[in-house]
Amino acid sequence: MKSEDLIANYLEKNKSRFIDELFELLRIPSISSLPENKNDMLAMADLWKHKLADAGADSTKIMPTEGNPVVYAEKIIDHSLPTVLVYGHYDVMPVDPAGLWKTPPFDPVIRDGKIYGRGADDDKGQSFIQAKAFEILVKTGLLKCNVKFMLEGEEETGSPSLGKFCEQNKDLLQADIIIVSDTGMVAADIPSITVGLRGLCYMEVEVTGPDRDLHSGIFGGAVANPANVLSKLIASLTDNDNRVNIPGFYDDVIEYTPAERNELSRVPFDIDKYKKSLGISDIYGETGYSTIERTGIRPTLDINGIWSGYTGEGAKTIIPSKATAKISMRLVPDQDHRKIALLFEEHFRKIAPASVKVTMTNLHGGQYYISPSEIPAYKAACRAYETAFGVTPVPVHSGGSIPIIPAFEQVLGIKTILMGFGLESDAIHSPNENFPLYNFYKGIETIIWFYIYFAELYRKNA
Amino acid sequence: MKSEDLIANYLEKNKSRFIDELFELLRIPSISSLPENKNDMLAMADLWKHKLADAGADSTKIMPTEGNPVVYAEKIIDHSLPTVLVYGHYDVMPVDPAGLWKTPPFDPVIRDGKIYGRGADDDKGQSFIQAKAFEILVKTGLLKCNVKFMLEGEEETGSPSLGKFCEQNKDLLQADIIIVSDTGMVAADIPSITVGLRGLCYMEVEVTGPDRDLHSGIFGGAVANPANVLSKLIASLTDNDNRVNIPGFYDDVIEYTPAERNELSRVPFDIDKYKKSLGISDIYGETGYSTIERTGIRPTLDINGIWSGYTGEGAKTIIPSKATAKISMRLVPDQDHRKIALLFEEHFRKIAPASVKVTMTNLHGGQYYISPSEIPAYKAACRAYETAFGVTPVPVHSGGSIPIIPAFEQVLGIKTILMGFGLESDAIHSPNENFPLYNFYKGIETIIWFYIYFAELYRKNA
Repeated sequence: MKSEDLIANYLEKNKSRFIDELFELLRIPSISSLPENKNDMLAMADLWKHKLADAGADSTKIMPTEGNPVVYAEKIIDHSLPTVLVYGHYDVMPVDPAGLWKTPPFDPVIRDGKIYGRGADDDKGQSFIQAKAFEILVKTGLLKCNVKFMLEGEEETGSPSLGKFCEQNKDLLQADIIIVSDTGMVAADIPSITVGLRGLCYMEVEVTGPDRDLHSGIFGGAVANPANVLSKLIASLTDNDNRVNIPGFYDDVIEYTPAERNELSRVPFDIDKYKKSLGISDIYGETGYSTIERTGIRPTLDINGIWSGYTGEGAKTIIPSKATAKISMRLVPDQDHRKIALLFEEHFRKIAPASVKVTMTNLHGGQYYISPSEIPAYKAACRAYETAFGVTPVPVHSGGSIPIIPAFEQVLGIKTILMGFGLESDAIHSPNENFPLYNFYKGIETIIWFYIYFAELYRKNA
Repeated sequence: MKSEDLIANYLEKNKSRFIDELFELLRIPSISSLPENKNDMLAMADLWKHKLADAGADSTKIMPTEGNPVVYAEKIIDHSLPTVLVYGHYDVMPVDPAGLWKTPPFDPVIRDGKIYGRGADDDKGQSFIQAKAFEILVKTGLLKCNVKFMLEGEEETGSPSLGKFCEQNKDLLQADIIIVSDTGMVAADIPSITVGLRGLCYMEVEVTGPDRDLHSGIFGGAVANPANVLSKLIASLTDNDNRVNIPGFYDDVIEYTPAERNELSRVPFDIDKYKKSLGISDIYGETGYSTIERTGIRPTLDINGIWSGYTGEGAKTIIPSKATAKISMRLVPDQDHRKIALLFEEHFRKIAPASVKVTMTNLHGGQYYISPSEIPAYKAACRAYETAFGVTPVPVHSGGSIPIIPAFEQVLGIKTILMGFGLESDAIHSPNENFPLYNFYKGIETIIWFYIYFAELYRKNA
């Protein structure tokens, strides 16, 4: 039987089991940022370990880290064959605002051809594509690579333990390439390979005025109101062209040439569809750049959260004692997240008035990543998409950050290929996260072909 | 026995009972803004009704309104005598942030000579001064006025039902003067009469961007972030001199003459004590005005609450769908709160970018009030303070608002004298609200003398 028939037959026979198994994963509320879900993290790791063993791994283990454990699995066929290291994460984001979910986030369902549930895409659904592609390769005898899996449980809180874990397990993790399914496609019919990721600098700032909430009548007008002050400070961080106003912020930003920008503009993009899909009447961003450029090659500054004072029903007349904001900046080559954190802190302290106290915490940071397009693995990925989708994939600069990807290169010396199958409409990190069944199955096919082509190209190169 | 001895004896004998009774009032969590405390409002009204009957009222009743009921009580001695209408409120503010209370807010205690508990000052403690002064006058035979009590249960939510209640009960409420204990004194040894109250315009604004929270990496830089936008809008509402930037806002503000400002500056004020009592390193406010002026005769704009996006632990990388703020303005003569609300809405809509939707709600409004100093009741109040404290009271412009006071004049045609006994350090509307025992007892004495002098002056005038 031809390879394509072997694959198609196996997939067709096992489709409903694959979904049942994915639902098992989706039912565990493995929210890494909430201490109350600690036990769910362990249950999640354990379930994944069994899934990978069932899929065909020879050896599986749950390895401790300083935080949540890593699930490791491998199938080593022959040391002369190339080795692929699959990275994914089994943790998910919180579900709030919980009230906006149409069905409970941890009670997965299929509606209109999509799997709904927290983690359906990010990253349980996408990691499971990797697991099931591996299973089919093993069970059909098509696997011609060594395979290692490393699934972590802290990606959504910034992978605080994984860098050290990699350093401590360099030998175990040796591979020729890392592949990751945790990114998106341009559209349902346009696959893409993510060749750029932005870096991240995430700060929390707290502005304190009086040592308690005050009556806004008796004190209003005479005492600095931390919420007013914080609003002014935040407002001053971006100018009228939506450029970041922190001195030195753009010093290391690589400006693209007109030719490079022209290349970027070839990514298909429908502004009306984009606006409609988000329910917005207009786009908004840095003057002089397109939407693709704003999210791909330009840095940002966004308020991720802000809170102060009375937030209940009706009118409470207080001057709040404190106001707090979470402020994150997405960074691009060659901005260093550590330097940006220092520039931010220095600037923020400078602009704050003497009448308030300011404290700042650097909650998270990570470098940008640029993926090379000349290596065999990239070419194998392109051919895999062409076979599965019948379309050449588009290289895209994603606006998101996966800070552990640049760390892999730094610590392990291995490049990463980002083969993601999500869509914008999957609503990751939001209520009603979903993942189309079409993308799930197409993803499995694509990853299978990646292994097949990668083994071929690797042999030729050797 | 002389009047002063009669009063002193009665007070001395009943001091501890007065505190016990006040504690009964303080134990009921009559938070008018929270629907879950609805039954507490009714229990509170009922307890007050009994307290006023016990104090000597001939007739008491709980009268329905469109919201929480009014407690009404009266003692009519002789229609040729002057009638005093006492106004107070039995509702209190919410207790949040609940974690900052040293002892539970509804479990009153005495610590260091102060009563601690929500409502200890505002306004259960102060209203109870009125009730106990009335009791002593009745029981010692010194009462030479008719007395009416009207206690409402919605002051902290802006007295939404009391205006209509007054209109429907004009005859019942007829009186020569209204007295209210719901304001403060300049210092523990400097009594004051509040001759001015600021008006209030309280708005809630909601800025909506995308129809759900978005991933701040994938969309950051290309979509208007409602929290960034709201911060910019709020920041633009005040200028670098801390003047309100809404066109027309100052059109009706009465500018004080140098002579009037000089008079105001005679109120004793210690800037270092002020800063220390609030835990602030510097004051802050409209350029060109003193702290007394900023809170007394100048309007303000304060954020009372703001919330958007992720407010939990750690780093969640979202662009929030919505951002909301509660924004209130304190107003001074001759600013009309209805006109200011319109100016605010018009301006805010104008400055909001097309990429977001803005909705606004006018949560509360009330006019400023100026109390006359030539009428017999004002003179009686001055003499009462002189007798009780040995000091002439200082006339002050309070920064706070009691919107029902100007409504009393409009609907009932009766002036109000504000005889309050609170201190800045009482922390009303804040955690650890308290009321010094000294102020409680001195307040009772002062109010007793007010009745005595008012009856005398009224007779002379007649």
